[in-house]
Amino acid sequence: MIEEIFIQKIFENDRRKVARAISIVESDNENSTELLKRIYQNVGGAYRIGITGPPGAGKSTITNQLTKLYRSLGKTVGIIAVDPTSPFTGGALLGDRIRMNDIGNDSGVFIRSMATRGSLGGLSKKANDAADVLDVAGYNYIIMETVGVGQSELDIAQAADTTIVVLVPESGDTVQAMKAGLMEIADFFVVNKSDRPDAKQAVTALQTILMMRPHDEHSWMPKIIDTIAVDNKGIIEVAEEISRHRMYLDQSGKFLKRREQRTKIRIKEIVEESIRKKLWNASGKEALNSALEKVILGSLSPYHIADEIIANFKNQL
Amino acid sequence: MIEEIFIQKIFENDRRKVARAISIVESDNENSTELLKRIYQNVGGAYRIGITGPPGAGKSTITNQLTKLYRSLGKTVGIIAVDPTSPFTGGALLGDRIRMNDIGNDSGVFIRSMATRGSLGGLSKKANDAADVLDVAGYNYIIMETVGVGQSELDIAQAADTTIVVLVPESGDTVQAMKAGLMEIADFFVVNKSDRPDAKQAVTALQTILMMRPHDEHSWMPKIIDTIAVDNKGIIEVAEEISRHRMYLDQSGKFLKRREQRTKIRIKEIVEESIRKKLWNASGKEALNSALEKVILGSLSPYHIADEIIANFKNQL
Repeated sequence: MIEEIFIQKIFENDRRKVARAISIVESDNENSTELLKRIYQNVGGAYRIGITGPPGAGKSTITNQLTKLYRSLGKTVGIIAVDPTSPFTGGALLGDRIRMNDIGNDSGVFIRSMATRGSLGGLSKKANDAADVLDVAGYNYIIMETVGVGQSELDIAQAADTTIVVLVPESGDTVQAMKAGLMEIADFFVVNKSDRPDAKQAVTALQTILMMRPHDEHSWMPKIIDTIAVDNKGIIEVAEEISRHRMYLDQSGKFLKRREQRTKIRIKEIVEESIRKKLWNASGKEALNSALEKVILGSLSPYHIADEIIANFKNQL
Repeated sequence: MIEEIFIQKIFENDRRKVARAISIVESDNENSTELLKRIYQNVGGAYRIGITGPPGAGKSTITNQLTKLYRSLGKTVGIIAVDPTSPFTGGALLGDRIRMNDIGNDSGVFIRSMATRGSLGGLSKKANDAADVLDVAGYNYIIMETVGVGQSELDIAQAADTTIVVLVPESGDTVQAMKAGLMEIADFFVVNKSDRPDAKQAVTALQTILMMRPHDEHSWMPKIIDTIAVDNKGIIEVAEEISRHRMYLDQSGKFLKRREQRTKIRIKEIVEESIRKKLWNASGKEALNSALEKVILGSLSPYHIADEIIANFKNQL
């Protein structure tokens, strides 16, 4: 049961309540669903930016610099950093935390890290739920920063209005990005650390690949922006390209289409997560464990057992 | 309906039938389930090796060299390479194919690439299913090679009897591996390209991190093996460490425990995939699309719609 005053405090951007609200959606229990249902009417004001790319490309630095730029323009920024952490390190790595420090004390910035390890899936759903909380709290921009490696991380980046793929000019990086499916989701590219010797070559390679994509003169053509994020070089150009893309979405009518598509993906995620939770509740786990013995004894295949579990599940739904 | 003669031909390692059987399990339809149920009694003879690590670490080269070594010892090898490919390149990248060429014409080796992009999930399930086919076809070793980046790729590596994590001595690589959860799943490490200047430093860093893991004198302590895979250096040591780990699993009783754990994960995957497919069949998709309009009109949240879809699903299961 969530009190109305708590909802109001979120809308007023009470930092402690916003933090608690995100903890609630992360826990993904009944309160979470109730909270998200009750704030939903107010969702939609924030512009969402996805920043993704391979590990070490400088995504956090770009997020940091872009945030400082938006702040200097009087805009507020919510950041959701999806950070793959190891269960035995027990949290985000120190380096990232330190880098975030100079924006972390600004009251117009809200930073939240989400772990990917040890969670029972549903990361993409939780990240979107957290973005909804920051959205209704009134943040102008929400930056969702993820390592572009797994499907769920890509899903998060793709849930944004504008998705930026950050690469570094290293041999093979472009090819790896292509392999990882990053090319398809980029609204534009940032080649960071562009003072490195092979930067020009990387940009040329990227351009060649982009030209191979099917496109016509009316469709959006992803640009490539050079940055040296640690020196704050190219960040204004990144912000300008975000604005240009936003304008394109508005004028082409694709803005609403994109949000519709995002809503569709989210409903699917919510349904699947909910069913998964029901499947493997206490009695589901028990059914699995007792069925397991039959497989070990060799009498039944995992597929036979799966049929049994599904038949059993039907009665519980 | 699958004919008995087809099953027999798989058991006899008829290459064309084995290839067709893997195509069937990849398609993941009713025939697939029937096939897997019928071969299951024969599964279990092959020893499964998972090879994972960041992109560019040299996993394919190690797989290739290890395969040649096993072949020289008279053993047969099945390889399942999970290759993240882009939908617009339309297949595995040329480089990997060329590298595989010198073992690809050996009748004692069976290579199968599986794409990760564009698939509707269930990759880990499909890779395990394909491994079952190669298992009953009589291959002595099955090597499952994946890029260690996403959860489903880690799941594949983890489904092996012995899991090897391949790293290169590059600054930050160890930290990134830690972030990506690779440390937890490694039975041992390979530091490839160990002739690079910072190789010693990388090994020391890795050792330090390993020492931090909780362990006692009776438990398995992951070693670090140096290789220069392109020059075939260190490959015998890798094979020896696989044997040593296999012996450890046998003597400690952990071999069966591990396979039991693997079966459990697989049953869960089969159940979830099956339910997901039923959820989003033609009528499920229609329900989603018509519900979507209500969300766009702002009258209901995605969470309300999800409730509706689940209630509706119950009647269909």
